Amino acid sequence: MSRSRSHTGPSHSPAWAPPAAAEQIWNEFSKEESTDEATIQKSFIRHATKTLARSSYNMDQFAAYQATAHSVRDHLIDRWNATQHCHSVKDPKRVYYMSLEFLIGRTLDNALLNLNLKDHYKRAIGGIGFTIEDLVDEEVDAALGNGGLGRLAACFMDSLATLDYPAWGYGIRYEYGIFQQKLVDGYQTEYPDYWLTFGNPWEIQRLDVSYDVRFRGYVEKYVDVSGQTRYRWEGGEKVVAVANDYPIPGFQTKNCINIRLWSSKPKKEFDFASFNEGNYDKSVEEQKAAENITSVLYPNDNHMVGKVLRLKQQYFFVSATLQDIIRRFKKTSRPWSEFPQQVSIQLNDTHPTLSIVELQRILIDEEGLTWDEAWDIVTHTYSYTNHTVLPEALEKWAVPLISDLLPRHMMIIFELNLYFLQRVEKLFPGDRDRLRRMSVIEEGHPQYVRMAHLAAIGSHHVNGVAELHSELVKTTIFADFVEFFGKEKFVNVTNGVTPRRWLHQANPGLSTLISEKLGGTAWLKDLSQLDKIKAFADDVGFQNRFMDIKYKNKIRLAEYVKDVTGVTLSPDALFDVQCKRLHEYKRQHMNIFGVIHRYEKLKSMSKAELEKVVPRVVIFAGKAAPGYYTAKLIIKLITSVANVVNADPQTSEYLKLIFIPNYNVSVAEILIPASDLSQHISTAGTEASGTSNMKFVLNGGLILGTVDGANIEIGEEVGKDNIFFFGALTAEVEDIRHHQMYHNVAMDAKLQGVIKSIQSGRYGDSVIFEPLLGTLRSDYYLLSKDFTPYLEAMERVDAAFKNKSAWAKKCITAAASMGKFSSDRSIQDYAKRIWKITPVPTTEEFA
Amino acid sequence: MSRSRSHTGPSHSPAWAPPAAAEQIWNEFSKEESTDEATIQKSFIRHATKTLARSSYNMDQFAAYQATAHSVRDHLIDRWNATQHCHSVKDPKRVYYMSLEFLIGRTLDNALLNLNLKDHYKRAIGGIGFTIEDLVDEEVDAALGNGGLGRLAACFMDSLATLDYPAWGYGIRYEYGIFQQKLVDGYQTEYPDYWLTFGNPWEIQRLDVSYDVRFRGYVEKYVDVSGQTRYRWEGGEKVVAVANDYPIPGFQTKNCINIRLWSSKPKKEFDFASFNEGNYDKSVEEQKAAENITSVLYPNDNHMVGKVLRLKQQYFFVSATLQDIIRRFKKTSRPWSEFPQQVSIQLNDTHPTLSIVELQRILIDEEGLTWDEAWDIVTHTYSYTNHTVLPEALEKWAVPLISDLLPRHMMIIFELNLYFLQRVEKLFPGDRDRLRRMSVIEEGHPQYVRMAHLAAIGSHHVNGVAELHSELVKTTIFADFVEFFGKEKFVNVTNGVTPRRWLHQANPGLSTLISEKLGGTAWLKDLSQLDKIKAFADDVGFQNRFMDIKYKNKIRLAEYVKDVTGVTLSPDALFDVQCKRLHEYKRQHMNIFGVIHRYEKLKSMSKAELEKVVPRVVIFAGKAAPGYYTAKLIIKLITSVANVVNADPQTSEYLKLIFIPNYNVSVAEILIPASDLSQHISTAGTEASGTSNMKFVLNGGLILGTVDGANIEIGEEVGKDNIFFFGALTAEVEDIRHHQMYHNVAMDAKLQGVIKSIQSGRYGDSVIFEPLLGTLRSDYYLLSKDFTPYLEAMERVDAAFKNKSAWAKKCITAAASMGKFSSDRSIQDYAKRIWKITPVPTTEEFA
Ligand SMILES: Cc1ncc(COP(=O)(O)O)c(C=O)c1O
Ligand SMILES: Cc1ncc(COP(=O)(O)O)c(C=O)c1O
Repeated sequence: MSRSRSHTGPSHSPAWAPPAAAEQIWNEFSKEESTDEATIQKSFIRHATKTLARSSYNMDQFAAYQATAHSVRDHLIDRWNATQHCHSVKDPKRVYYMSLEFLIGRTLDNALLNLNLKDHYKRAIGGIGFTIEDLVDEEVDAALGNGGLGRLAACFMDSLATLDYPAWGYGIRYEYGIFQQKLVDGYQTEYPDYWLTFGNPWEIQRLDVSYDVRFRGYVEKYVDVSGQTRYRWEGGEKVVAVANDYPIPGFQTKNCINIRLWSSKPKKEFDFASFNEGNYDKSVEEQKAAENITSVLYPNDNHMVGKVLRLKQQYFFVSATLQDIIRRFKKTSRPWSEFPQQVSIQLNDTHPTLSIVELQRILIDEEGLTWDEAWDIVTHTYSYTNHTVLPEALEKWAVPLISDLLPRHMMIIFELNLYFLQRVEKLFPGDRDRLRRMSVIEEGHPQYVRMAHLAAIGSHHVNGVAELHSELVKTTIFADFVEFFGKEKFVNVTNGVTPRRWLHQANPGLSTLISEKLGGTAWLKDLSQLDKIKAFADDVGFQNRFMDIKYKNKIRLAEYVKDVTGVTLSPDALFDVQCKRLHEYKRQHMNIFGVIHRYEKLKSMSKAELEKVVPRVVIFAGKAAPGYYTAKLIIKLITSVANVVNADPQTSEYLKLIFIPNYNVSVAEILIPASDLSQHISTAGTEASGTSNMKFVLNGGLILGTVDGANIEIGEEVGKDNIFFFGALTAEVEDIRHHQMYHNVAMDAKLQGVIKSIQSGRYGDSVIFEPLLGTLRSDYYLLSKDFTPYLEAMERVDAAFKNKSAWAKKCITAAASMGKFSSDRSIQDYAKRIWKITPVPTTEEFA
Repeated sequence: MSRSRSHTGPSHSPAWAPPAAAEQIWNEFSKEESTDEATIQKSFIRHATKTLARSSYNMDQFAAYQATAHSVRDHLIDRWNATQHCHSVKDPKRVYYMSLEFLIGRTLDNALLNLNLKDHYKRAIGGIGFTIEDLVDEEVDAALGNGGLGRLAACFMDSLATLDYPAWGYGIRYEYGIFQQKLVDGYQTEYPDYWLTFGNPWEIQRLDVSYDVRFRGYVEKYVDVSGQTRYRWEGGEKVVAVANDYPIPGFQTKNCINIRLWSSKPKKEFDFASFNEGNYDKSVEEQKAAENITSVLYPNDNHMVGKVLRLKQQYFFVSATLQDIIRRFKKTSRPWSEFPQQVSIQLNDTHPTLSIVELQRILIDEEGLTWDEAWDIVTHTYSYTNHTVLPEALEKWAVPLISDLLPRHMMIIFELNLYFLQRVEKLFPGDRDRLRRMSVIEEGHPQYVRMAHLAAIGSHHVNGVAELHSELVKTTIFADFVEFFGKEKFVNVTNGVTPRRWLHQANPGLSTLISEKLGGTAWLKDLSQLDKIKAFADDVGFQNRFMDIKYKNKIRLAEYVKDVTGVTLSPDALFDVQCKRLHEYKRQHMNIFGVIHRYEKLKSMSKAELEKVVPRVVIFAGKAAPGYYTAKLIIKLITSVANVVNADPQTSEYLKLIFIPNYNVSVAEILIPASDLSQHISTAGTEASGTSNMKFVLNGGLILGTVDGANIEIGEEVGKDNIFFFGALTAEVEDIRHHQMYHNVAMDAKLQGVIKSIQSGRYGDSVIFEPLLGTLRSDYYLLSKDFTPYLEAMERVDAAFKNKSAWAKKCITAAASMGKFSSDRSIQDYAKRIWKITPVPTTEEFA
């Protein structure tokens, strides 16, 4: 029983077409529903009573959310259909954004805003007796990602849709997204994120779009009819990939694009032979194995974990996606040589790199192209985004593992590596060390495949995600490759964030103010217009309105904090936020050490001194990878210090410390608009870009940060007076490390004080923190070097915050300088320089 | 994250109620959609484009079926809601029909007919460019049952809905229904029936209706506040039961009732601790175990298989169902003593018998009632239908198995058995053998729990399913119980079939003819009116129309047979059908031996003799349990003989032999209306009722049968001239067996001839058939005794078929005599005599 879709477009002999008489009926009844109050109410009630089979006497808030979501979904689907129809007919070059992570967050509010239906729904739903804001809060986050990389993918989809680009996202529909973080006795504990339990109105299951994916088996050598020696991959096990579509509406456009997420299903559903023998376990084994592939997202951020299941996820994803892309390409019967003119595939990090090998395999083994023809197509199709130069984050897979799971791919990798190294040898004869460094294969026992090398060799462009990072890419991991391929191949596309979600949706007050000043919402599609807000930076009336919005956002956050932690915050304090994945390189420990330093200082102050202090609320949020012991200890230290600090009446007015559990997109949407200061304090050279830094400034907060990642470009835009920089520079880091290692440098005195304070037992038994304190001995991340500069920068912050008007001016100027950091700009960069695609708006005839 | 439904009725503080202003909107927009052509087309297109996210350029027949189904589903849900609302407000006594099997078949056509929307949809869908008949054929069967028992449950639900009874069906939503049967080299092979692959529009997932179900653990003894010693069941593992609702519309009534099917889900969804340790397998283990509970239907019919998983299914089903029933009961805050006045629970066979123990456990352990109060409630709540007296089919479960899985239940079973046996001992002092015979516990190593005894002791009524069978129940397995409880407790309710599906839907030609003669369709709700058709039995014009309908049905079947087997049939031949589960007691082997005998005889005939022969098509269909070796051999013999017979030009005009693979409800709907003769030839005393016999006669076919099950009552109704009886009577069977065993009786000569023919190798290597032929040595099912009478009966059939008009008269008279065998009559019997419930039609104010 297989019903697989062969035709999805109108252009080439569709399976069925309405008879002439029916065409009119079809056109009339498939029009998008109107958006007057009564029609929305009717749709809501239809979905409540029909789709959900509820009735007015058994409704609750969650059911009302579901009914609303289904009603909005109808609009999305209409636009989705129109867009696909239009793109099918026009058949432009498309970009395929392959990402193992999409950190989408909630959809309802975002969809309402992008479709410009928020007010309509507010009134209509209000008339039925529900409040739209309450319903929005019923939605669970779609959290299919770890952090920045996944959220970037989500922002990019919003921009691609908004800018009318013909684009698809491809990924995996994990049954469990990133785990739910709860604090138990101050420790992070992980709970499953079974986000699909109550159904998901935003997903369209495409049971008719499914593909077989093979694992293991063997490679058969044979001679084809034309006498050519060829190979084919046979045997092994197959699982089925089923498509699940997530419509992504553009802002103020009819276009609605698609993220297609694959879920795995067993191929042979049930082994009845085993069942009959009473061997039930065996009979479901294959089933379980297949379904497990897409069960769970690996919860590691910037850290490689070499699990077989993860490799299976990668290939499963790659195989299904390529089959879908090729099916779509083949509908137009173009020759293979045109593939790169029709298809651009972007690899979000190395996770989908097997795609390069898979396309080569399909072209030579299945489509009968020669190696060179195939490789030419492959290398004109792919481009690859590098997200990190941290060694522990660079993917490498053991050769025996790939050989076992993907025997034909392993052969092809060896072969393309050989051809590649032969070309290197030709250019640099006899340079054995260079060959060793550049090889896709890392020698050793076992050998490893270096995925970044594979990605770089198989792509026409490699990009970093901020200027500094793109330079580092060229001078560290790909230095040899720049010499070989030339520097044009290595480009920078600075990350961006979508102003629709991160300002318009998350901070409606500020968005409204800006629209008022700029005379409309056009700036939300062209963020460079923000610049005009700078004119109001000195305007006291504007400053007051601006800071009043911030104040209200702080109240909203304080209510949330009260709700989840029980601690009361004063919105008059400086809200100082660090929210992001827990990582030594991000240096949350430097921040908590700073808080301890501040607390000890407050304790030693006289009343008179205290009264001059700027009250401060320090807020942390973020998940640690479940296996990342040191990161989890940092959380325990934060919560331990918070217990002491928040209970201390002596300092209570001047310092509060909060760890908000379960950081996710929805929490970010509350936190970011409410921060006065945010910390982005990675050791220089470690943070590729960061994107939350952009969001904070866009929302009228200032950055305390190192000269790292996108902080640098943000500094360039906002001006050095409107950002608090500190710390060692990238160029110095190696020397400092060397110096620390070989010259017995003493630890920073203030940091020593902090450590003593911890070891005194003031924050609980200090033995548990020893492994964390121990990392300061080699101090790879330079906490000691940067600690005093960090504290000094903090003092500058405090001083600046005292002058309300000057602070407001800084914030306004900074926010108004953020035009560059729209993901629209990033996407236009990609589109023009790398993908070579142009917008295809859905025209009236398709709507 | 648990959202469980606490309020489903309007009567008691609903969670939410629409504000006064919204009530009007709600009322206006939740009205049932009208059924004019344009509204149906609009609904179809809305579902195609929105629910399925298709568009006119990617429709196909299956998508069109889905869109139609969703549109019809909307009507069902409206009526479902209205019915539930009405029943919630009126709160009558309800019946709960607990059945581990529901053999529903397809829904679309049935729903259209019951809702009286067939013509509307035909026209509307036609206007869009699809043919409703084609779409109906796209649906996969819901085959959650083995055979008669499951199909009976489905017919009963149709009658309960049609007669407006406040009733619920409860069962399990197996992910795999009964396996798909395919023939490979003439052997049955089994394939998974993954009927849910492409979604199921007829199911309403109720994620908010879920209950925990416990397994294993231990029993804790404690003293409660009032000083009473009590027990509670603790620990162990829990799984979650989630409700899935299947609306069942009545015929020509607003009422639409519900079958609630449970699926199992893991309680703790994911073990992150294990996952973090890299132990992925362990982390999904619990999940798998939980989901496996409702994975697959046990494919055994009339045969007990003592698998742990099966016991788990039973308790899972029982626990979830009782929790749901009790929740509904508790909404009205009545005292427990009123439970039996509000709730009647029917056990379909012993499969749900643990329900008796579970209710007792809940009442004493959780609700704090005394043992006697509790037992009084239990025994006034349950009634039990026995479906067989065959020893191999009677359920018994090993005590150690129950002790392990359900420790508290095992305690309660021992306790209630003790109290029961003490009462027996009081009435029959010193009769140790009687105690041994009547005990719930069968002594031995291990001990076993006799489920039928438990069911009989815990119920107020026990019924058999046909007169003969109900007598056998009283004189064999429950003889001692009749003496103890008195004979009033043991009643008969003869089975019936729903004339809506089995005549109106399956045989529209005949239904139309009858409605024409009876002036309307009222007879479909009161089948006794069929009687008036007898007046036309002699009317040649009517005979011609009647037989012409049969002829068209035979053509439809011939086309189907051509399609699935490639064999061409002549509709002029006598179509002789035996379709039912493969079983030795049903004696398909006697039938195929008869075919061999006929074939050999044809082979020996002269041309002149041949010309006098009535051409015959013999059709078999039916599944064998995958582990039932002998039954599978019978299939192989049938297909082997068919290969020879169908290829023989000499006999080809006079005999064709067909095995239709994968017998199911949809195949039955084609087969039954097309048969001239059907065989129901079980050894006397073995078939409890049979229901397909009723369907065949109702559709104008005649029965060739033994004096067994419902055949007897059919014979009483149609008159002995209109049924072909043969064979030993029930009362003789024991003596014949004894005689055969101890007196060296020779095998029937004609049967010997058949065996020789098989052993000659004419139908392939005969060695494979030896195990089947070997069963004839002890000949438990009396093939030898009955074979000659069987062949003689066949000769009577042939003779009768030659006289076309007389045959037509027989068929008309027989069909018109079937009024008794409507499942409406069965249900009214149950309702009045056992359940004490009355109809509650959904009145206007709720619609
Ligand atoms: C939930 C979540 N995690 C991680 C990030 C990335 O944060 P950063 O750029 O600070 O690493 C974001 C960005 O807003 C986010 O919303
Ligand atoms: C699919 C199916 N199986 C089994 C049965 C029961 O058949 P019988 O009464 O001959 O055992 C029926 C009745 O129609 C049926 O439709």
